[in-house]
Amino acid sequence: MSPTSKRLPLIVLLTDFGTRDEYVGVMKGVISSINPEARTIDLSHDLHPHDIMEAGFMLYRSYRFFPEGTIFLVVVDPGVGTERRIIILRQASYYFLAPDNGVLSFIFKKEEAKMVVWVQKGTGYFLPTISRTFHGRDCFAPIAAHLSKGIALAKFGREIDDPTILRIPTPSISSRKSLVGEVIYIDRFGNLITNIDYETFEDFQKRHPKKLLKVRVGRKIIPKLSSSYQDARPNELLAIFGSSNHLEISLNMGSAKDSLRANKGTRVEVSP
Amino acid sequence: MSPTSKRLPLIVLLTDFGTRDEYVGVMKGVISSINPEARTIDLSHDLHPHDIMEAGFMLYRSYRFFPEGTIFLVVVDPGVGTERRIIILRQASYYFLAPDNGVLSFIFKKEEAKMVVWVQKGTGYFLPTISRTFHGRDCFAPIAAHLSKGIALAKFGREIDDPTILRIPTPSISSRKSLVGEVIYIDRFGNLITNIDYETFEDFQKRHPKKLLKVRVGRKIIPKLSSSYQDARPNELLAIFGSSNHLEISLNMGSAKDSLRANKGTRVEVSP
Amino acid sequence: MSPTSKRLPLIVLLTDFGTRDEYVGVMKGVISSINPEARTIDLSHDLHPHDIMEAGFMLYRSYRFFPEGTIFLVVVDPGVGTERRIIILRQASYYFLAPDNGVLSFIFKKEEAKMVVWVQKGTGYFLPTISRTFHGRDCFAPIAAHLSKGIALAKFGREIDDPTILRIPTPSISSRKSLVGEVIYIDRFGNLITNIDYETFEDFQKRHPKKLLKVRVGRKIIPKLSSSYQDARPNELLAIFGSSNHLEISLNMGSAKDSLRANKGTRVEVSP
Repeated sequence: MSPTSKRLPLIVLLTDFGTRDEYVGVMKGVISSINPEARTIDLSHDLHPHDIMEAGFMLYRSYRFFPEGTIFLVVVDPGVGTERRIIILRQASYYFLAPDNGVLSFIFKKEEAKMVVWVQKGTGYFLPTISRTFHGRDCFAPIAAHLSKGIALAKFGREIDDPTILRIPTPSISSRKSLVGEVIYIDRFGNLITNIDYETFEDFQKRHPKKLLKVRVGRKIIPKLSSSYQDARPNELLAIFGSSNHLEISLNMGSAKDSLRANKGTRVEVSP
Repeated sequence: MSPTSKRLPLIVLLTDFGTRDEYVGVMKGVISSINPEARTIDLSHDLHPHDIMEAGFMLYRSYRFFPEGTIFLVVVDPGVGTERRIIILRQASYYFLAPDNGVLSFIFKKEEAKMVVWVQKGTGYFLPTISRTFHGRDCFAPIAAHLSKGIALAKFGREIDDPTILRIPTPSISSRKSLVGEVIYIDRFGNLITNIDYETFEDFQKRHPKKLLKVRVGRKIIPKLSSSYQDARPNELLAIFGSSNHLEISLNMGSAKDSLRANKGTRVEVSP
Repeated sequence: MSPTSKRLPLIVLLTDFGTRDEYVGVMKGVISSINPEARTIDLSHDLHPHDIMEAGFMLYRSYRFFPEGTIFLVVVDPGVGTERRIIILRQASYYFLAPDNGVLSFIFKKEEAKMVVWVQKGTGYFLPTISRTFHGRDCFAPIAAHLSKGIALAKFGREIDDPTILRIPTPSISSRKSLVGEVIYIDRFGNLITNIDYETFEDFQKRHPKKLLKVRVGRKIIPKLSSSYQDARPNELLAIFGSSNHLEISLNMGSAKDSLRANKGTRVEVSP
């Protein structure tokens, strides 16, 4: 038995389809029809419609917690019905199936890509009839299901070396010697997750070894970094390196988003 | 081994219970208690409460994408606690378990019913205690679980030939020779899905072979039919045959519902 | 094969994480990585954030409908990052894994606890790195996954006899000889579920054998108890013992919550 065929058939779904309509359920029906052994896990279906960066950042925070061989099926696809390519990226023991619109940019930047394949229509891994508006059902779900059966990646199409990679906002050092980043995700609790990762922060900290660093968001200054939500009193703001190892601004027992009227893109500044 | 016992135990759930309360999870617990091998897929639980037509149309758009032998468990049941019947319809290799309130009308119209069984209480396929308000848990879930074990349909009760079938709004030809339909479903993206299916449209088109057909919704006129969302500029309306082969009105990168202030029942007219 | 190892690996998830973010999906990824055989069922993820009583009452209404051996993984954890204990309760053939913050109070009161274990970090059942903010992923999910593999409960830590048990509001008899309870849960349909269970009601009824009991909520009086939603006309209030055997106030075809402007804590009074 080849290593490929022993792979656990697990497909993780990430879409902006919501769960009120039947779209996600129907994709699972297609998957079950092709590979009854495949199991699925929902990562999220309530992304902001067409928000490629949000989807990409969520995927980047999440994928390493899944078993090796997991197939990530990402359908955030403002270009449905156009000639945008469908690609499969094999990287770090995982498979990422997505439209070639940049949604995998965070993954491409994280590690060297092993292989990117442009899925070709003549291969027979699509549904027989392809609608104009629902490629999640007619293209992505059947491709993922066939991939989960252990079919070799090369059979899905031809290798490419020019996948779409978008510019990801990265932190920078300002003229006033501050580390400047921005909010790139806001979760259900109103926590503001920034693009300042711990490695970047650590580098910055080494240049200011004896100083207590403070964090500024809008007009508010948070005087120190916390190591637990309980460092702050109820309804007090705190800055903490959260579960994805990025700097987060939180309000103990409340919503930092509402309290600060912050949005994606809001500037966050770390300074001595 | 009989063909029945080889059936894949897949149960698809469609309810108006929402996912905030424990109702759907508890139904899955009952299913797992009776048949640990059964897998479940959620089609939707966020239907408008008690909206039988919405549930029926969603089921009709979806069922053929699931494996043969799938059991559809539909609980949209304004009559819970009354003497309305519980039925199982076997049709087109599928099983549909539902209250006999018309929710299966779209399915009945689509193909000739193979067999309809009125599930009887004495058969032992209910929970021992039946509450007054939660037949999803006490009746529907255990019946589906027993059915998924391969128990013959006839054992659940007696065949009937008078299931409830509701009038489904169908398109018609107006005095001004237009094809007149209406919006029957609105999805998360604000797409307006009409009751004008492609076959009806094609018949109409044949009678006007050299004309470019236009679509009217309220006071807006869409001058042609599109074959992709990208036929329209951002925030432009378009008319397209969508993934369920019904005419849909969409707004490229926006919500047609909000833009047109449309609702279910809004008139949609195709004319030369 | 020991009885423990034959246990069905079913993990039921109950959190206040919502489903918009990736948190729940990532927990399932961790579970799949450790025990690929484990199946999961979502009870709810849309509890009011940090509402321990709501989570506890939902669990209490639900657990007995799941197969024996089910592991309930409850993460409603305002104290994440503090030194609050993580416990596993074994009771009535079930396992309950939760922070020791009182969320299991309803379960503790229901039956004599069989065994409570305080999970210890040195046991190796956590992820190698524990973040400050996401113990659901780093502690609870891996513990549940290891437990689902049949590892003996005693191996997770040491037995304790002082778990946190919160005061649960219970019905009482007023000076005017009424049975007085309160609303403790409101569901998606706006049904008001009270803390008056059927046993307490039956005791009260025995003391007033020849009287027709009425129910008062705010200024409204419901003259009798119903046995079905259809006992009331559309938009009429009714009082009924619902699916969890607690007294519920419902509005036929509408929301009792909206109609009565009721909330959790609203007083409900049964009197002759």
